[in-house]
Amino acid sequence: MDVEAFRKAGYQAIDRICDFYYSLQERPVVPPVQPGYLLKQLPDAPPEEGEDWNVIADDYQKLILPGLTFWQHPNFYAYFPTACTFEGMLGDLYSTSTPNPGFNWTSSPACTELEMAMMDWCARLFGLADHFLNSSGTGGGVIQTTSSDSALVVTVAARSQYTRRHPDAKLEDLLLYVTTQTHSLGVKASLVLGLQCRVLDVKPEDEYALRGETLRAALEEDVARRKRPFFLIGTVGTTSSGAIDRLDEIGEVLKDYPDVWLHVDAAWAGVTLACPEYRDVSRLKDINTYATSVGTNLHKWGLVNFDAALLWVRSRTDLTDALDVTPEFLRTKQSEAGAVIDYRNWHLGLGRRFRSLKVWFVLRSYGVKGFQAYIRRCIELNEYFASLVKTSPSFALVTQPSFALTVFRVVADPTALGLPAPLGPDALNDLNRAFYARVSARGEIFLTQTQLNGTFCVRLAVGAERTRKEHIDRAWALIQEEAGIAVTLRETFDPSNERLRKRY
Amino acid sequence: MDVEAFRKAGYQAIDRICDFYYSLQERPVVPPVQPGYLLKQLPDAPPEEGEDWNVIADDYQKLILPGLTFWQHPNFYAYFPTACTFEGMLGDLYSTSTPNPGFNWTSSPACTELEMAMMDWCARLFGLADHFLNSSGTGGGVIQTTSSDSALVVTVAARSQYTRRHPDAKLEDLLLYVTTQTHSLGVKASLVLGLQCRVLDVKPEDEYALRGETLRAALEEDVARRKRPFFLIGTVGTTSSGAIDRLDEIGEVLKDYPDVWLHVDAAWAGVTLACPEYRDVSRLKDINTYATSVGTNLHKWGLVNFDAALLWVRSRTDLTDALDVTPEFLRTKQSEAGAVIDYRNWHLGLGRRFRSLKVWFVLRSYGVKGFQAYIRRCIELNEYFASLVKTSPSFALVTQPSFALTVFRVVADPTALGLPAPLGPDALNDLNRAFYARVSARGEIFLTQTQLNGTFCVRLAVGAERTRKEHIDRAWALIQEEAGIAVTLRETFDPSNERLRKRY
Repeated sequence: MDVEAFRKAGYQAIDRICDFYYSLQERPVVPPVQPGYLLKQLPDAPPEEGEDWNVIADDYQKLILPGLTFWQHPNFYAYFPTACTFEGMLGDLYSTSTPNPGFNWTSSPACTELEMAMMDWCARLFGLADHFLNSSGTGGGVIQTTSSDSALVVTVAARSQYTRRHPDAKLEDLLLYVTTQTHSLGVKASLVLGLQCRVLDVKPEDEYALRGETLRAALEEDVARRKRPFFLIGTVGTTSSGAIDRLDEIGEVLKDYPDVWLHVDAAWAGVTLACPEYRDVSRLKDINTYATSVGTNLHKWGLVNFDAALLWVRSRTDLTDALDVTPEFLRTKQSEAGAVIDYRNWHLGLGRRFRSLKVWFVLRSYGVKGFQAYIRRCIELNEYFASLVKTSPSFALVTQPSFALTVFRVVADPTALGLPAPLGPDALNDLNRAFYARVSARGEIFLTQTQLNGTFCVRLAVGAERTRKEHIDRAWALIQEEAGIAVTLRETFDPSNERLRKRY
Repeated sequence: MDVEAFRKAGYQAIDRICDFYYSLQERPVVPPVQPGYLLKQLPDAPPEEGEDWNVIADDYQKLILPGLTFWQHPNFYAYFPTACTFEGMLGDLYSTSTPNPGFNWTSSPACTELEMAMMDWCARLFGLADHFLNSSGTGGGVIQTTSSDSALVVTVAARSQYTRRHPDAKLEDLLLYVTTQTHSLGVKASLVLGLQCRVLDVKPEDEYALRGETLRAALEEDVARRKRPFFLIGTVGTTSSGAIDRLDEIGEVLKDYPDVWLHVDAAWAGVTLACPEYRDVSRLKDINTYATSVGTNLHKWGLVNFDAALLWVRSRTDLTDALDVTPEFLRTKQSEAGAVIDYRNWHLGLGRRFRSLKVWFVLRSYGVKGFQAYIRRCIELNEYFASLVKTSPSFALVTQPSFALTVFRVVADPTALGLPAPLGPDALNDLNRAFYARVSARGEIFLTQTQLNGTFCVRLAVGAERTRKEHIDRAWALIQEEAGIAVTLRETFDPSNERLRKRY
């Protein structure tokens, strides 16, 4: 493809993306396809001769688009959002137009320097303390692929620091802490590194937040049995219910255990720190006081297209001491002094894409005020949804709404069911599974399920940039309708069909 | 930014990318900027109010483009290439237009299925055995971010397999093997996992390839001292000189050590397998016979824009047994049977971008023949360059040319220097450093340096899609000119300036 053919194909792509966004609301949020739908339409091997671009581009429309789940759909309320803005797309487009692996400053100066600057912009946007800034020369920020990568990187740094301080420690005795509500990234880091992981209990009466006393009891017990706790993940905004660990209490406990690295995973809720009114509830002061590292994802609820996982550390040498494979004689004065960063020593791989470009585009185009307005709108929409749940006799909140997330369930009125007494826990779980399966089978809105202490519940997370009040109203109407049918039919749910989203 | 503003900004981006490619050859391949050039031009924090798109887009042209190293420049011969095609850009553009984290089939069916299909297409393109195909249902392929990630993932899988087989093994006793010529990804994997790494010697007379006898001696020694060797990286095309380990001998030795996982890192040279005439030298038969896993990067020398690191394993359960955090009751029949793959259990993170799209675009647009033609052209251009080196009395090849890589150095003719005898090794190294610094300071072509057994040498790797014979001729003229000046001036080189590419 030569330059002029690219111009034509590029215009076409832009036009088709525009068409797609005009038609998005009419498309199903989850595609009505079965496993294997695409595999059976593709040949087994690449073609011998090159094909015409128009055929390829048309096949994208015909084969791929109908098989995508649209995370940017206004009716997408599942998992947590994945950000999607036109500014983010333009960032990815310019970035891929001059691809380079950006592993150190020389390999592409602008990549390194813009990443340094954008991590400082975001630190200031979120009110992080100066010790997390790249301009501090001691701490700093880096863009990782996902929060899992961020967590893994700091687990490695923490292990490395611990074993340097305690050369006698056996890896078999090292222990990292998560809670039952921590994202699976914690358990995965322990699997990847072959280290033991202890899962701490949290209680419904604490809204599933880790308390200091639970942590202290575990630390005392584990130290007594000669284990080596070295790492704890605290969460601001858990996946299941948006719980926020008591970082104030945790931080005080860890004063007695200075070898334990506190990583704060604020993958989803960290972006609320852009709004001053949420900084207390999101525990900004505790993060700045106690956290060794903290991460949040702009690619979740932060308007930057996947991927852009931000990670800050209090001390950059914690990363480079663990990950730097540069021989001593190649270390540069500039890098050591913080004038430039060799980002390859701040993550697991070597090459890295030019991701800071889309961050720059988004932050400049939205400005701080635009970013705040988006966060506030999502929270307001969720509060509106939660108020509908609260005032309905057929539904109940399972936990308090957390920012843009509501966890709720059907609570069947015994009178409506013609029953003398309320349903028992198992029957109520079954009813909720049936309700959730009905909603999912409609394919019109996308929610996700979760379990909290044995209670089956449904999550609605607001975050798509195009979601407005009318979408929430429509979702609520649909939720009421399907709950009503599930209650009326007194459906029971066959768990073997659960993953198939089979229509009843 | 609304849809119509995006259309305008998108057209503008496409036009500017076209302009860029028309002007590429006139631009410097390495930007003439100093550390901090960009940082000092940017404000400390994001703007309060959103800015106009045209201001932002113009700033990209003004601030970013002049600070990029152009890996797609026809005069780029450094490191290994980073692929760049218009088809690859279009893949990234469509992909970012509907971003999603693609962690399992449901989260976006087309992402999972196209990746499954493309990994099989590439396996067939490269002649890999059926046991590496996704359609085998037992082995399979996955796209990772970089070869470092691929190596780390399989090191984790190998460690996990080893400790399951030998529950008594201490992590402290585990040992992974690399050679002095293995990419730093091997040492980095050992750093990340906190495991010991033994670096095996290779010899110039073997063209820096690992031999079976070296491996056997190490294994016998390490087993005798109760170490637990569990993983070996064999390389097809090392970074320094394109060396190819003797996988035939290695494979035979490992028959006596069935617990040692053989990973073949063919990050750069693996793409030569697309051409039947290179399959012997690239050891296809040995890969198919002996390798537990094998990886190659389409984003290096394979026409697909960064990132697209392909990784195949002989047994997919080796990955999922090590990385799957899905509780038993959530495993699906479809996934277990190989109908669909939950790719989140095949890599370190959770979310993943839709990278197979650009692979599809490139392979269809080029076809097998177009892909082969590109590989062959690069090799021919390199052979042409190597022939110029060979026939010049002032230069010598340090190793035999490997595919599209030549490693060479200045060998000053004592007569030309007015000296009675040839220069000693140190003086010759100094002369070559001076020569390399002169070439680099010109900023017109980009080469990299390396060391082979104490010999300072210069690498020229062909790979940019726009490089043609006239560029090689120009590079050769410039190399001759700067070598001539270095020899005439009998320059000595100040190593403290080496990283600054300071003009003499």
